Amino acid sequence: MPNPITHDRRYFEDLAEGETFALGPMKVTKTDIIEFATEFDPFPFHLDEKAAKQSLLGGLAASGWQTGGLSLRMLVDALLSRVASMGGLGFAGLKWKRPLMKGDTLSGTATITSLRRSNSRPEMGILTVAFDMHNQRGEQVMTLNLANLVEVRNPGAGAAQ
Amino acid sequence: MPNPITHDRRYFEDLAEGETFALGPMKVTKTDIIEFATEFDPFPFHLDEKAAKQSLLGGLAASGWQTGGLSLRMLVDALLSRVASMGGLGFAGLKWKRPLMKGDTLSGTATITSLRRSNSRPEMGILTVAFDMHNQRGEQVMTLNLANLVEVRNPGAGAAQ
Repeated sequence: MPNPITHDRRYFEDLAEGETFALGPMKVTKTDIIEFATEFDPFPFHLDEKAAKQSLLGGLAASGWQTGGLSLRMLVDALLSRVASMGGLGFAGLKWKRPLMKGDTLSGTATITSLRRSNSRPEMGILTVAFDMHNQRGEQVMTLNLANLVEVRNPGAGAAQ
Repeated sequence: MPNPITHDRRYFEDLAEGETFALGPMKVTKTDIIEFATEFDPFPFHLDEKAAKQSLLGGLAASGWQTGGLSLRMLVDALLSRVASMGGLGFAGLKWKRPLMKGDTLSGTATITSLRRSNSRPEMGILTVAFDMHNQRGEQVMTLNLANLVEVRNPGAGAAQ
Protein backbone atom coordinates (compact mmCIF):
# COMPACT_ATOMS: atom_id res chain seq x y z
CA MET A 1 0.00 0.00 0.00
CA PRO A 2 1.44 3.40 -0.90
CA ASN A 3 2.20 5.77 1.91
CA PRO A 4 -0.86 8.05 2.02
CA ILE A 5 0.92 10.93 3.75
CA THR A 6 0.86 13.84 1.35
CA HIS A 7 2.90 17.01 1.25
CA ASP A 8 0.07 19.53 1.52
CA ARG A 9 0.75 19.56 5.25
CA ARG A 10 -1.46 21.59 7.51
CA TYR A 11 0.12 22.78 10.73
CA PHE A 12 -1.58 23.54 14.03
CA GLU A 13 -2.16 27.16 12.99
CA ASP A 14 -4.04 26.02 9.86
CA LEU A 15 -6.75 24.17 11.78
CA ALA A 16 -9.97 25.69 13.12
CA GLU A 17 -12.38 24.66 15.85
CA GLY A 18 -15.68 23.52 14.38
CA GLU A 19 -14.13 22.30 11.14
CA THR A 20 -15.77 19.01 10.08
CA PHE A 21 -14.60 16.12 7.93
CA ALA A 22 -16.67 13.43 6.21
CA LEU A 23 -15.52 9.90 7.07
CA GLY A 24 -16.06 6.81 4.91
CA PRO A 25 -18.28 5.28 3.68
CA MET A 26 -16.95 1.74 4.01
CA LYS A 27 -18.95 -1.49 3.78
CA VAL A 28 -18.02 -4.22 6.27
CA THR A 29 -18.14 -7.79 5.02
CA LYS A 30 -18.43 -11.08 6.86
CA THR A 31 -14.78 -11.82 5.97
CA ASP A 32 -13.61 -8.46 7.35
CA ILE A 33 -15.43 -9.13 10.61
CA ILE A 34 -14.14 -12.67 11.08
CA GLU A 35 -10.53 -11.82 10.18
CA PHE A 36 -10.34 -8.96 12.65
CA ALA A 37 -12.11 -10.83 15.45
CA THR A 38 -9.90 -13.89 15.03
CA GLU A 39 -6.86 -11.77 15.82
CA PHE A 40 -8.17 -9.37 18.47
CA ASP A 41 -11.64 -10.19 19.76
CA PRO A 42 -12.38 -13.90 19.30
CA PHE A 43 -15.95 -14.21 20.56
CA PRO A 44 -18.59 -16.41 18.92
CA PHE A 45 -20.78 -13.38 18.09
CA HIS A 46 -17.90 -11.97 16.01
CA LEU A 47 -16.84 -15.30 14.45
CA ASP A 48 -19.84 -17.51 13.78
CA GLU A 49 -23.17 -16.55 12.22
CA LYS A 50 -25.20 -19.18 14.06
CA ALA A 51 -23.81 -18.25 17.48
CA ALA A 52 -24.21 -14.58 16.59
CA LYS A 53 -27.91 -15.01 15.84
CA GLN A 54 -28.44 -16.48 19.30
CA SER A 55 -26.51 -13.67 21.00
CA LEU A 56 -27.66 -10.29 22.25
CA LEU A 57 -26.42 -8.82 18.96
CA GLY A 58 -28.86 -10.87 16.86
CA GLY A 59 -26.39 -11.50 14.05
CA LEU A 60 -22.75 -11.36 13.00
CA ALA A 61 -21.36 -8.06 14.28
CA ALA A 62 -17.97 -6.42 13.97
CA SER A 63 -15.82 -6.11 17.07
CA GLY A 64 -16.21 -2.62 18.49
CA TRP A 65 -12.44 -2.33 18.19
CA GLN A 66 -12.76 -2.90 14.46
CA THR A 67 -15.30 -0.06 14.26
CA GLY A 68 -12.78 2.07 16.13
CA GLY A 69 -9.89 1.04 13.89
CA LEU A 70 -11.87 1.65 10.71
CA SER A 71 -12.95 5.07 11.99
CA LEU A 72 -9.35 5.97 12.80
CA ARG A 73 -8.29 4.96 9.31
CA MET A 74 -11.04 7.17 7.88
CA LEU A 75 -9.76 10.11 9.96
CA VAL A 76 -6.22 9.47 8.70
CA ASP A 77 -7.49 9.56 5.12
CA ALA A 78 -9.69 12.64 5.65
CA LEU A 79 -7.49 14.73 7.93
CA LEU A 80 -4.50 13.29 9.76
CA SER A 81 -2.56 12.37 6.61
CA ARG A 82 -2.72 16.05 5.65
CA VAL A 83 -1.63 17.54 8.95
CA ALA A 84 1.77 17.60 10.62
CA SER A 85 0.73 14.90 13.09
CA MET A 86 3.21 13.95 15.78
CA GLY A 87 1.18 11.02 17.10
CA GLY A 88 -1.86 10.20 19.18
CA LEU A 89 -2.35 10.90 22.87
CA GLY A 90 -5.46 8.89 23.68
CA PHE A 91 -9.22 9.08 24.04
CA ALA A 92 -11.43 11.09 26.30
CA GLY A 93 -14.13 8.48 25.77
CA LEU A 94 -15.48 5.81 23.46
CA LYS A 95 -19.03 4.48 23.35
CA TRP A 96 -20.40 1.72 21.19
CA LYS A 97 -24.03 2.70 20.68
CA ARG A 98 -25.09 -0.07 18.34
CA PRO A 99 -23.25 -2.97 16.70
CA LEU A 100 -21.97 -2.72 13.15
CA MET A 101 -23.49 -5.77 11.48
CA LYS A 102 -22.32 -7.83 8.51
CA GLY A 103 -23.08 -5.89 5.32
CA ASP A 104 -23.52 -2.58 7.13
CA THR A 105 -21.82 0.53 5.76
CA LEU A 106 -19.91 2.71 8.20
CA SER A 107 -19.63 6.44 7.70
CA GLY A 108 -19.62 9.53 9.86
CA THR A 109 -18.19 12.91 10.64
CA ALA A 110 -15.23 14.15 12.62
CA THR A 111 -15.40 17.63 14.14
CA ILE A 112 -12.49 19.60 15.57
CA THR A 113 -13.72 20.37 19.09
CA SER A 114 -10.59 21.85 20.61
CA LEU A 115 -7.17 23.25 19.64
CA ARG A 116 -4.76 23.94 22.46
CA ARG A 117 -1.07 24.86 22.45
CA SER A 118 1.09 22.80 24.77
CA ASN A 119 2.29 24.77 27.80
CA SER A 120 5.51 22.83 28.15
CA ARG A 121 6.36 22.18 24.48
CA PRO A 122 5.83 25.28 22.31
CA GLU A 123 6.40 23.29 19.11
CA MET A 124 3.34 21.15 19.81
CA GLY A 125 -0.39 21.67 19.79
CA ILE A 126 -3.15 19.32 20.91
CA LEU A 127 -5.96 18.68 18.46
CA THR A 128 -9.17 17.11 19.81
CA VAL A 129 -11.58 15.52 17.37
CA ALA A 130 -15.08 14.16 18.06
CA PHE A 131 -16.16 11.17 15.98
CA ASP A 132 -19.85 10.56 15.24
CA MET A 133 -20.17 7.27 13.35
CA HIS A 134 -23.36 5.90 11.76
CA ASN A 135 -24.61 2.94 9.78
CA GLN A 136 -26.38 3.20 6.41
CA ARG A 137 -29.72 3.84 8.17
CA GLY A 138 -28.32 6.89 9.95
CA GLU A 139 -28.29 5.06 13.29
CA GLN A 140 -25.43 6.03 15.58
CA VAL A 141 -22.81 3.28 15.94
CA MET A 142 -19.95 4.85 17.89
CA THR A 143 -18.79 8.10 19.44
CA LEU A 144 -15.21 8.83 20.36
CA ASN A 145 -13.04 11.82 21.30
CA LEU A 146 -9.47 11.53 20.10
CA ALA A 147 -6.53 13.73 21.14
CA ASN A 148 -3.60 14.06 18.74
CA LEU A 149 -0.36 16.06 18.75
CA VAL A 150 0.12 18.44 15.81
CA GLU A 151 3.27 20.38 14.99
CA VAL A 152 3.18 24.17 15.36
CA ARG A 153 4.63 25.97 12.32
CA ASN A 154 5.90 29.02 14.22
CA PRO A 155 6.49 28.07 17.86
CA GLY A 156 7.88 31.53 18.61
CA ALA A 157 4.84 33.45 17.38
CA GLY A 158 2.43 34.12 20.24
CA ALA A 159 2.49 32.71 23.76
CA ALA A 160 1.13 29.25 24.53
CA GLN A 161 -2.43 29.59 25.77
CA MET B 1 -7.69 -20.51 14.87
CA PRO B 2 -9.79 -22.60 17.29
CA ASN B 3 -12.53 -20.83 19.13
CA PRO B 4 -10.96 -19.98 22.49
CA ILE B 5 -14.27 -19.67 24.33
CA THR B 6 -14.28 -22.38 26.97
CA HIS B 7 -17.12 -23.91 28.93
CA ASP B 8 -15.89 -23.09 32.40
CA ARG B 9 -18.09 -20.00 32.21
CA ARG B 10 -18.07 -17.51 35.02
CA TYR B 11 -21.21 -15.46 35.43
CA PHE B 12 -21.56 -11.99 36.91
CA GLU B 13 -22.04 -13.44 40.41
CA ASP B 14 -18.72 -15.31 40.15
CA LEU B 15 -16.61 -12.17 39.71
CA ALA B 16 -15.15 -10.04 42.50
CA GLU B 17 -13.96 -6.44 42.68
CA GLY B 18 -10.20 -6.28 43.06
CA GLU B 19 -9.59 -9.55 41.24
CA THR B 20 -6.52 -9.21 39.00
CA PHE B 21 -5.41 -11.00 35.85
CA ALA B 22 -1.94 -11.21 34.29
CA LEU B 23 -1.89 -10.14 30.64
CA GLY B 24 0.68 -11.24 28.07
CA PRO B 25 3.62 -11.18 27.61
CA MET B 26 3.76 -10.68 23.86
CA LYS B 27 6.74 -9.47 21.82
CA VAL B 28 5.95 -7.02 19.01
CA THR B 29 7.98 -7.37 15.83
CA LYS B 30 8.68 -4.93 13.03
CA THR B 31 6.40 -6.98 10.76
CA ASP B 32 3.53 -6.88 13.29
CA ILE B 33 3.85 -3.11 13.54
CA ILE B 34 3.97 -2.45 9.80
CA GLU B 35 1.10 -4.83 8.97
CA PHE B 36 -1.25 -3.27 11.50
CA ALA B 37 -0.30 0.31 10.65
CA THR B 38 -0.74 -0.29 6.92
CA GLU B 39 -4.37 -1.18 7.53
CA PHE B 40 -5.39 1.21 10.30
CA ASP B 41 -2.81 3.89 11.10
CA PRO B 42 -0.58 4.52 8.06
CA PHE B 43 1.89 7.08 9.38
CA PRO B 44 5.61 7.08 8.52
CA PHE B 45 6.56 6.56 12.18
CA HIS B 46 4.59 3.29 12.17
CA LEU B 47 5.69 2.17 8.68
CA ASP B 48 9.27 3.16 7.99
CA GLU B 49 12.30 2.84 10.28
CA LYS B 50 14.17 5.79 8.83
CA ALA B 51 11.19 8.15 9.10
CA ALA B 52 10.47 6.77 12.58
CA LYS B 53 14.00 7.60 13.78
CA GLN B 54 13.49 11.23 12.74
CA SER B 55 10.08 11.45 14.44
CA LEU B 56 9.16 12.32 18.02
CA LEU B 57 9.02 8.60 18.76
CA GLY B 58 12.70 8.05 17.94
CA GLY B 59 12.18 4.70 16.26
CA LEU B 60 9.63 2.33 14.78
CA ALA B 61 6.65 2.27 17.15
CA ALA B 62 3.39 0.35 17.15
CA SER B 63 0.17 2.25 16.54
CA GLY B 64 -1.48 2.97 19.87
CA TRP B 65 -4.52 1.19 18.47
CA GLN B 66 -2.41 -1.93 18.04
CA THR B 67 -1.34 -1.71 21.69
CA GLY B 68 -5.04 -1.43 22.56
CA GLY B 69 -6.00 -4.35 20.32
CA LEU B 70 -3.24 -6.58 21.69
CA SER B 71 -4.24 -5.70 25.25
CA LEU B 72 -7.87 -6.54 24.50
CA ARG B 73 -6.82 -9.89 23.07
CA MET B 74 -4.82 -10.58 26.24
CA LEU B 75 -7.90 -9.79 28.35
CA VAL B 76 -9.98 -12.14 26.22
CA ASP B 77 -7.43 -14.90 26.78
CA ALA B 78 -7.07 -14.21 30.52
CA LEU B 79 -10.66 -13.43 31.49
CA LEU B 80 -13.34 -12.63 28.91
CA SER B 81 -13.18 -16.03 27.18
CA ARG B 82 -14.06 -17.58 30.54
CA VAL B 83 -16.98 -15.33 31.47
CA ALA B 84 -20.49 -15.15 30.05
CA SER B 85 -19.67 -11.99 28.11
CA MET B 86 -22.51 -10.31 26.23
CA GLY B 87 -20.29 -7.75 24.50
CA GLY B 88 -18.39 -4.55 25.12
CA LEU B 89 -19.86 -1.17 26.07
CA GLY B 90 -16.91 1.16 25.62
CA PHE B 91 -14.08 2.87 27.43
CA ALA B 92 -14.03 5.37 30.24
CA GLY B 93 -10.58 6.45 29.10
CA LEU B 94 -7.47 5.43 27.22
CA LYS B 95 -4.03 6.97 27.58
CA TRP B 96 -0.92 6.13 25.63
CA LYS B 97 1.88 6.86 28.10
CA ARG B 98 4.84 5.74 26.03
CA PRO B 99 5.16 4.14 22.60
CA LEU B 100 5.58 0.39 22.20
CA MET B 101 8.72 0.10 20.08
CA LYS B 102 9.86 -2.60 17.68
CA GLY B 103 11.11 -5.58 19.68
CA ASP B 104 9.40 -4.47 22.90
CA THR B 105 7.43 -6.98 24.93
CA LEU B 106 3.97 -5.95 26.10
CA SER B 107 2.52 -7.28 29.34
CA GLY B 108 0.39 -5.97 32.14
CA THR B 109 -2.43 -6.51 34.57
CA ALA B 110 -6.17 -6.11 34.43
CA THR B 111 -8.04 -5.39 37.65
CA ILE B 112 -11.80 -5.62 38.18
CA THR B 113 -12.62 -2.14 39.47
CA SER B 114 -16.41 -2.26 39.47
CA LEU B 115 -19.30 -4.74 39.21
CA ARG B 116 -22.77 -3.27 38.83
CA ARG B 117 -26.12 -4.88 38.04
CA SER B 118 -28.09 -3.20 35.27
CA ASN B 119 -31.16 -1.33 36.55
CA SER B 120 -33.18 -1.85 33.40
CA ARG B 121 -32.03 -5.35 32.40
CA PRO B 122 -31.85 -7.73 35.39
CA GLU B 123 -30.15 -10.42 33.30
CA MET B 124 -27.13 -8.18 32.73
CA GLY B 125 -24.28 -6.88 34.82
CA ILE B 126 -21.61 -4.35 33.93
CA LEU B 127 -18.01 -5.34 34.54
CA THR B 128 -15.37 -2.58 34.56
CA VAL B 129 -11.73 -3.53 34.15
CA ALA B 130 -8.67 -1.28 34.46
CA PHE B 131 -5.73 -2.14 32.22
CA ASP B 132 -2.17 -1.25 33.25
CA MET B 133 0.17 -2.17 30.41
CA HIS B 134 3.99 -2.08 30.54
CA ASN B 135 7.02 -2.78 28.39
CA GLN B 136 9.83 -5.19 29.34
CA ARG B 137 11.54 -2.45 31.39
CA GLY B 138 8.44 -1.99 33.55
CA GLU B 139 7.66 1.37 31.97
CA GLN B 140 3.95 2.14 31.62
CA VAL B 141 2.74 2.01 28.02
CA MET B 142 -1.04 2.34 28.21
CA THR B 143 -3.90 2.63 30.66
CA LEU B 144 -7.50 1.93 29.76
CA ASN B 145 -10.84 1.33 31.53
CA LEU B 146 -13.09 -1.06 29.68
CA ALA B 147 -16.79 -1.71 30.39
CA ASN B 148 -18.27 -5.05 29.37
CA LEU B 149 -21.69 -6.70 29.75
CA VAL B 150 -21.73 -10.02 31.62
CA GLU B 151 -24.69 -12.35 31.99
CA VAL B 152 -26.24 -12.74 35.43
CA ARG B 153 -26.79 -16.40 36.36
CA ASN B 154 -29.84 -15.79 38.57
CA PRO B 155 -31.54 -12.56 37.53
CA GLY B 156 -34.34 -13.11 40.04
CA ALA B 157 -32.07 -13.44 43.07
CA GLY B 158 -31.58 -10.08 44.78
CA ALA B 159 -32.52 -6.64 43.57
CA ALA B 160 -30.41 -4.76 41.09
CA GLN B 161 -28.06 -2.40 42.94
